[in-house]
Amino acid sequence: MPASSPALAEILDALGPEQVLVDPTSTEALSHDHAEWAPVGVPLAVVRARSTADVAAVVRACHRHGVPVVARGAGTGLSGGANATDGCVVVALAGMDAILEVNPLERLAVVQPGVVNDHLRAYVAEQGLWYPPDPASSPWSTIGGNVATNAGGLCCVKYGVTRDYVLALEMVTGTGEVVRLGRRTAKGVAGYDLAGLVVGSEGTLGIVTEVTVRLRPLPPPAITVAGHFSSIVDAGAAVREVAAAGITPAALELVDRTCLEAVDAWKHMGLAVDADVVLLARVDEPGELGAALADRVVACFTAGGATWADRSTDAQESEALFAARRLAYPALERLGPVLTEDVCVPKEHVPEMLARIEKLAERHDVTIANIAHAGDGNLHPLLITPPGDEAARTRAQAAFEEILDAAIELGGTVTGEHGVGVLKRGGLERELSPAVLAMHRAVKDALDPAGILNPGKVVGA
Amino acid sequence: MPASSPALAEILDALGPEQVLVDPTSTEALSHDHAEWAPVGVPLAVVRARSTADVAAVVRACHRHGVPVVARGAGTGLSGGANATDGCVVVALAGMDAILEVNPLERLAVVQPGVVNDHLRAYVAEQGLWYPPDPASSPWSTIGGNVATNAGGLCCVKYGVTRDYVLALEMVTGTGEVVRLGRRTAKGVAGYDLAGLVVGSEGTLGIVTEVTVRLRPLPPPAITVAGHFSSIVDAGAAVREVAAAGITPAALELVDRTCLEAVDAWKHMGLAVDADVVLLARVDEPGELGAALADRVVACFTAGGATWADRSTDAQESEALFAARRLAYPALERLGPVLTEDVCVPKEHVPEMLARIEKLAERHDVTIANIAHAGDGNLHPLLITPPGDEAARTRAQAAFEEILDAAIELGGTVTGEHGVGVLKRGGLERELSPAVLAMHRAVKDALDPAGILNPGKVVGA
Repeated sequence: MPASSPALAEILDALGPEQVLVDPTSTEALSHDHAEWAPVGVPLAVVRARSTADVAAVVRACHRHGVPVVARGAGTGLSGGANATDGCVVVALAGMDAILEVNPLERLAVVQPGVVNDHLRAYVAEQGLWYPPDPASSPWSTIGGNVATNAGGLCCVKYGVTRDYVLALEMVTGTGEVVRLGRRTAKGVAGYDLAGLVVGSEGTLGIVTEVTVRLRPLPPPAITVAGHFSSIVDAGAAVREVAAAGITPAALELVDRTCLEAVDAWKHMGLAVDADVVLLARVDEPGELGAALADRVVACFTAGGATWADRSTDAQESEALFAARRLAYPALERLGPVLTEDVCVPKEHVPEMLARIEKLAERHDVTIANIAHAGDGNLHPLLITPPGDEAARTRAQAAFEEILDAAIELGGTVTGEHGVGVLKRGGLERELSPAVLAMHRAVKDALDPAGILNPGKVVGA
Repeated sequence: MPASSPALAEILDALGPEQVLVDPTSTEALSHDHAEWAPVGVPLAVVRARSTADVAAVVRACHRHGVPVVARGAGTGLSGGANATDGCVVVALAGMDAILEVNPLERLAVVQPGVVNDHLRAYVAEQGLWYPPDPASSPWSTIGGNVATNAGGLCCVKYGVTRDYVLALEMVTGTGEVVRLGRRTAKGVAGYDLAGLVVGSEGTLGIVTEVTVRLRPLPPPAITVAGHFSSIVDAGAAVREVAAAGITPAALELVDRTCLEAVDAWKHMGLAVDADVVLLARVDEPGELGAALADRVVACFTAGGATWADRSTDAQESEALFAARRLAYPALERLGPVLTEDVCVPKEHVPEMLARIEKLAERHDVTIANIAHAGDGNLHPLLITPPGDEAARTRAQAAFEEILDAAIELGGTVTGEHGVGVLKRGGLERELSPAVLAMHRAVKDALDPAGILNPGKVVGA
């Protein structure tokens, strides 16, 4: 195959054979993300990019020959956005992992796309600085991938999502040009917000090769509040109480018993709690303010129907609970294929949405575990199927689509932070009007006229 | 003219004659914004829109006949973005001024574009809520205009700009379709961020007919810190000290003696201070935290070279100083034509940029007063010319362009918050690369294929 592809010949010519994988046994692992049951194609090659020039050379070659280009970071995505399409070139950016600058006065960092989220956070923390967006995948996922999906996370309920922290981007366009979008200044309105447009575009409008992110000062130590609930709908009511009280916690997470047990079975963290659902809040206001706010969160949990709620006096236990929240997804994956939802609804409808998920699980006879960035109304029902059970898979897929419909019906969205990829293509078409979908296609055509950038993802091919 | 224009005939047919002004003496006042020396055309008509349907009817008629459409709010813009082009239809949105919803639980408001910024702020304050973006024009400017320019303001140094608060938009496209962009949920990544793209696009990508904005809880009462400086470069150094100390004040404003004296001559507020430049900071952390932070700001001002700096113990005096800051621009306008700059530079370069402005004033023999959102690095040098002095005008315009070049040279932008309009078109072309300008034009063509929306603004006609 290599010899017969002029695009590949040009790429090999420009980069040399060391960075270009063509053997299917090597390329397979780099051809998909973590989305369950999303279609995966067979790539022409996987290129391990080391520089912006590498990426530009690949895109130029692919542009000349009409070959699709799919960018990937760590492959932790959950919507199939980084899945290869047949005959594409996958550009693997994990090797471009340098932190190029940290500027405490301007409170910004400039990084390559392959920098792992937790690595950046640890690095800037040494200077008293903080990069807030913290997807549960932060130990593995890259900033480039976070930018591609506009990743959220636990602290986003108070501190915002990836787009809120991206100041500027260097990007390779669909025609192989290298452009700089955005700015280094605190404010700026010189032209359209193309940097913001590229954030969350899942590699369909350009391949990001450098990211300038805003930083904040490290927040003060947080107080954890935990609440136990005997039903998920009660927990949802408590989330609504917190919102109605006008409180913005630094995190407000929901984890159900299925998830806690799966993590405990894997990591032996001693998490067994006498509750079906746990809510975890963090409050990071300093001193007495924080203590008073934590007490108000306890009161909201109680008003929502908690069987037990209190400020945690055990820092280790708090950490374990938040760690369990982060590990819930990989822990469940050990048990069999997990189809992950990512709906987001207005906070007032969180109890109703959780009730509908429960009913859909029953109606379709599917095990649905729940984790949620509950304070955002961003729910992650996890549809678990026994390995190899095709009938269960079909039922799970039906429930998956109906959960999307329920979220749309409640004024929500089919994806809060994971992106559309291929799994939510149908959902996107139900959420947006035909006129808005047409605007998406027009923007895609404008910025990727040859249609080679991650074709078939987000908007139609 | 009316009888000979098929577009106007269709508009009159759809809306009736009451909402359609064609008499040049009536249309002139609604044909331009507050930008000095920006070209103004003669419109075919001004339509006072009362509903989204009105706007859609106008755009459809104009689309059919290739007539340009220019949207306007209160006309407080400072870049000529709302200036009529010859033969266009101006759509005046000030009459669409209803607040449609305030939802304390979701912390959002839904408003029509003609709602005046201060009106929205006062209205939501009754429910303990706050709409932060506060351009100095807030007593007059509209939310629609704020969205068109992605307006900033005083508190943006800590709380962000208009785009950070826009959740969703209803918009009439360049083909007259009514679309809804964005969402009501806290998070959402279903497709491209088209709502964010429209914010700051100055009416070139669509006409916004409804805005859903995020709200915050009202902040606690603030402490004001004032500092007097004997030179603007010292004040710039103090701003840099604040940034280097890692402090984010809730406002950090610079006002020079020329501005204070102009306001005092107009409003008789008793502002005479024994300083060439005043820095005003606000700190809104609660209780002792706030007091300690205010003391640190005083120390930064002193380190920067203040001749006097202290926490204000006189609430009335503090209010008067901030009011003077807001009134500086109209006060100077009373003295003659004022050409307003809006450059934004990295905070570390604020002293150097202020020094360059001083030198350019000298070299071009132009009076330049200064106000600045100094904490953002967003400077508003005000070039003042004697009425009718053509030579002074020419010198001011030369200085204006060189200030833009200096900002670009220091890694800044030609416009921090006022927008490109027509005054910064040249600056934009110097700031952005040809490839990025081409991306702008491609996006414009994609979303306004007939090129009728505010042609000639931001990107080339």
